[in-house]
Amino acid sequence: MPTYNPPLRDMQFVMHEVLKVTDEYKLMPRHAEVDADTINAVIEEAGKFAATVTFPLNISGDETGCAYDRETHAVATPQGFKEAYAQYVEGGWAALSCDPEYGGQGLPLVLNQCLYEMLNSANQAWAMYPGLSHGAYEALHAHGTEEQKKTYLPKLTSGEWTGTMCLTEAHCGTDLGLLRTKAEPQGDGTYRLTGNKIFISAGEHDMTANIVHLVLARLPDAPKGSKGISLFIVPKFHVKADGSLGERNSIYCGGLEHKMGIHGNATAQIVLDGAVGTLVGEPNKGLAAMFVMMNAARLGVGNQSLGLTEVAYQNALAYAKDRLQMRSLSGVKAKDKPADPIIVHPDVRRMLLTAKAYAEGGRALLLFCTLLIDKELNHPDEKVRKDSAELVALLTPIVKAFLTDNGWSATTQSQQVFGGHGFIKEWGMEQFVRDARINMIYEGTNGIQALDLLGRKILGNNGASLKKFGKLVAALVEEEGVNEKMAEFINPIAYLGDQMTKFTTEIGFKGLQNPDEVGAAAVDYLRVAGHLVFGYFWARMAQTALREIAAGNPDPFYQGKLQTARFYFAKLFPETATLMRTARAGSKALMDTDAALA
Amino acid sequence: MPTYNPPLRDMQFVMHEVLKVTDEYKLMPRHAEVDADTINAVIEEAGKFAATVTFPLNISGDETGCAYDRETHAVATPQGFKEAYAQYVEGGWAALSCDPEYGGQGLPLVLNQCLYEMLNSANQAWAMYPGLSHGAYEALHAHGTEEQKKTYLPKLTSGEWTGTMCLTEAHCGTDLGLLRTKAEPQGDGTYRLTGNKIFISAGEHDMTANIVHLVLARLPDAPKGSKGISLFIVPKFHVKADGSLGERNSIYCGGLEHKMGIHGNATAQIVLDGAVGTLVGEPNKGLAAMFVMMNAARLGVGNQSLGLTEVAYQNALAYAKDRLQMRSLSGVKAKDKPADPIIVHPDVRRMLLTAKAYAEGGRALLLFCTLLIDKELNHPDEKVRKDSAELVALLTPIVKAFLTDNGWSATTQSQQVFGGHGFIKEWGMEQFVRDARINMIYEGTNGIQALDLLGRKILGNNGASLKKFGKLVAALVEEEGVNEKMAEFINPIAYLGDQMTKFTTEIGFKGLQNPDEVGAAAVDYLRVAGHLVFGYFWARMAQTALREIAAGNPDPFYQGKLQTARFYFAKLFPETATLMRTARAGSKALMDTDAALA
Repeated sequence: MPTYNPPLRDMQFVMHEVLKVTDEYKLMPRHAEVDADTINAVIEEAGKFAATVTFPLNISGDETGCAYDRETHAVATPQGFKEAYAQYVEGGWAALSCDPEYGGQGLPLVLNQCLYEMLNSANQAWAMYPGLSHGAYEALHAHGTEEQKKTYLPKLTSGEWTGTMCLTEAHCGTDLGLLRTKAEPQGDGTYRLTGNKIFISAGEHDMTANIVHLVLARLPDAPKGSKGISLFIVPKFHVKADGSLGERNSIYCGGLEHKMGIHGNATAQIVLDGAVGTLVGEPNKGLAAMFVMMNAARLGVGNQSLGLTEVAYQNALAYAKDRLQMRSLSGVKAKDKPADPIIVHPDVRRMLLTAKAYAEGGRALLLFCTLLIDKELNHPDEKVRKDSAELVALLTPIVKAFLTDNGWSATTQSQQVFGGHGFIKEWGMEQFVRDARINMIYEGTNGIQALDLLGRKILGNNGASLKKFGKLVAALVEEEGVNEKMAEFINPIAYLGDQMTKFTTEIGFKGLQNPDEVGAAAVDYLRVAGHLVFGYFWARMAQTALREIAAGNPDPFYQGKLQTARFYFAKLFPETATLMRTARAGSKALMDTDAALA
Repeated sequence: MPTYNPPLRDMQFVMHEVLKVTDEYKLMPRHAEVDADTINAVIEEAGKFAATVTFPLNISGDETGCAYDRETHAVATPQGFKEAYAQYVEGGWAALSCDPEYGGQGLPLVLNQCLYEMLNSANQAWAMYPGLSHGAYEALHAHGTEEQKKTYLPKLTSGEWTGTMCLTEAHCGTDLGLLRTKAEPQGDGTYRLTGNKIFISAGEHDMTANIVHLVLARLPDAPKGSKGISLFIVPKFHVKADGSLGERNSIYCGGLEHKMGIHGNATAQIVLDGAVGTLVGEPNKGLAAMFVMMNAARLGVGNQSLGLTEVAYQNALAYAKDRLQMRSLSGVKAKDKPADPIIVHPDVRRMLLTAKAYAEGGRALLLFCTLLIDKELNHPDEKVRKDSAELVALLTPIVKAFLTDNGWSATTQSQQVFGGHGFIKEWGMEQFVRDARINMIYEGTNGIQALDLLGRKILGNNGASLKKFGKLVAALVEEEGVNEKMAEFINPIAYLGDQMTKFTTEIGFKGLQNPDEVGAAAVDYLRVAGHLVFGYFWARMAQTALREIAAGNPDPFYQGKLQTARFYFAKLFPETATLMRTARAGSKALMDTDAALA
């Protein structure tokens, strides 16, 4: 059976020593009182919840899955899920970073992100129930009418009700412009919705008295395509004026999908059979409103793979120290034992360090992005808010795609450390791999993220956003350029930063003549950008570690951080050498292939 | 539901147009009569069997899995498996390449390899029952006494009985020197074996009247470690002098593993409770005898991933042509449809072509290796036999590790083409991924293959075997060096071939001072070698295609081959740029990490 220890020390390192979040929070009126002790106390309690409440349900939830009742359309979640959710609500976790106006605790989103990393490590399938709900909270908070907010936000904040995002239909996932669900105005300000949705995560369950569905649909007079989509609230149970539950609405679960992983989460087919809903935001502007949820959700998906990478790494590390097999090539290490622990073998270390470097680099990047959102929402200076918003928009597709591709690789390699035992369910490693797989697909496939990054976020504004991140790299290069001890970390990112500028211009020019050049380069480009960003954060983490070591801090944590940074630059960062070549190879080798793909 | 079309045309291309196998067979007395018509007829029938008999059982076999009865220790295979096996035996497929002396058809192993590729595409879990059995046949054929051969080989040849390999114990997989199962001589030429084995594929089932277990165990006076291991035959039912079945032997299944994939194959815990067996080969030389099986099995595992890559590719290609989503970046392609088929998108093509290039490169390499074994066994010239044996020994770890790592990547990317639908069981794609995962682990993890290649096969004989392969590359470079049309294929392999020579010497020198340098470079080295080998075969396939095109052959198959070759060199081969760097980065970044891995 796997184990899980919340990585509190590493979260604290990122928050307090690298990002210095409390210095930032002091500038924001809402968060000015948030000090290190508060942060540490919150994540410690959050870690306890994840490790002791939802982690023990991870394997059993995978084995049982959710059960659908055809008669009643009800869904039973795996044993213990409902009780764990009640404890979550009881503990106030749902409200952690919600608006105090609706009963929230108003703490920074960075803390919520730490909470979710641990929930994801412990049990991704379970964590998706409150996770999706928080997305619905954010969309309503940003776009709901006063009445909608008053009706729904307090319940979503407390966690008494959960929310969903109903976007996908059988014939459209990426291309929402094709969607067919209809919304007919009733003349009383409400609409009747008819259609079929699929792949609705946490779409039906037995955890709460009500479920608040956010549904994309078309008004009768809507323009074709993505400009004719509106967003609606369609509650499972109608809500009376006094806030109590009324009649059952005609939105129901038509069945559950059988999936590769996240078995404990109900992936529902949702039938709207003249269900009554109200409009959120303006008619035909539903996609924009939904994107509020989607951007937060994309960071959340990156966090899911971060969580899985961390827990897979922890278990692989423990196994590698325990499992005795063969002798070290450089001489017997454990003389009193029949064989050496497999951690003596260089390639076993390579697999472990890959997962570790991806987890810790990912954590730094994700918390940096989340801090940017805290600034975007709460910083008094408008320019800071604007810059933060722009930078987080740039980095979001990188977090989503780079962390989830890395998570696939990291969980697979952690599983490989176990040899044959890694393939056996009881060890839990294969579940981490299966669960990690969906993260590369949903909330926009990783290919779509790459197009979003290169096409929209970078070429779409002539590289202006990229320059914003480039400035951070340049500042670090400037700061540490003459520090010999930092050269091994600074030189590669300085070099890659220069290369990327040229490289981006090059693709931009080629793309003007043939837009397929952008599509052909995008996935490789995103991984290069991912390494530039990871390289930057690994350099900053190495900088912090070197300073502590120079100051005489004897904590081996800093040596470990330095060693992992060295591993990252020696063994993972050089992937960029290939990626630059394959991206530059252009679209011809992909597109002149009609005979090959006949 | 997925579909499968046996890739007969591509197999014929490799056998008849690239390798020209019948020219080779004419030189071998046993196979002199094997002509193209025979080959084509055999693979066509084999393809029919795979596509119509075992493929329809693939998803249902995965869903049901095998059932273990604690009372009787019996294992029920999924519905239809037993009947399909009876058809297989009836059709004479088990005997295809077996020795006519024991009832075999004596056809080349290349044909058997083609048969297995299709069985693996159709249903890997099912194919493992006859597959393991064929391994046992080969070990007994090479090392059994006359009596053992007479007793067991006819039944294994016909397929009336199956065989297993019982190696692994809970505390030892890679490190068989640690194994504990004991064999006590009974004074009558038999031994009583006591111990527990795990992970025994096809270890118990309901398909045949008897199962012939080949078991590794220790004699009482055996030296410690791997030099004290002997090989035994331990039949499930004793065999009487007249060949009929006698009493049940005390070897039985103690339980089945719950696994990530290959659910239809019974992965058995095998208990030996004083079971009676006979010695195969010499005492304490069991590992050597078992390696006969293991080497063939390693090619067989490569073939499993080749099969999965092919079937995953076929389904992804069909889906990409059918699924309408978004418009092409370079302008609408399907004006009459609401969106373009996703095959218009460059990155979708990249994923498809990755799977295609890996499948077709893998097929060429695997059939080349299998032809080498046919030569090793049947060529009249001793030098050819010896050279063939040496070359196939070199290439075996590459086939095992490179094809299975590629298979993981290819099945994952083929699944990605399906977006969210790829995660859903009904589409069948996620099963290909789960089944492909074991191939990187069993028969020696891919990390072990890398050590075998670099440590034993290459540095172990000072690069002599590598030079043998290098000569093939050099000959092709020589032959086509002035052909401008071949330059795009020849230049990269000529360059990489040179690089590898230096690179190998470099690691060899570093390894003399610190053996961990070999362990640190091995996995990257194997992938570089894999690309050199794939590059060579893609260049040869391009050469054949170019010649046909130049001769006016209008079959678009050749254009397709050329396009795939171009894709391979543009988008996959450049992985070597990174691998050379990371391998050269050495062991320090891996081994000086005690604080990081504390």
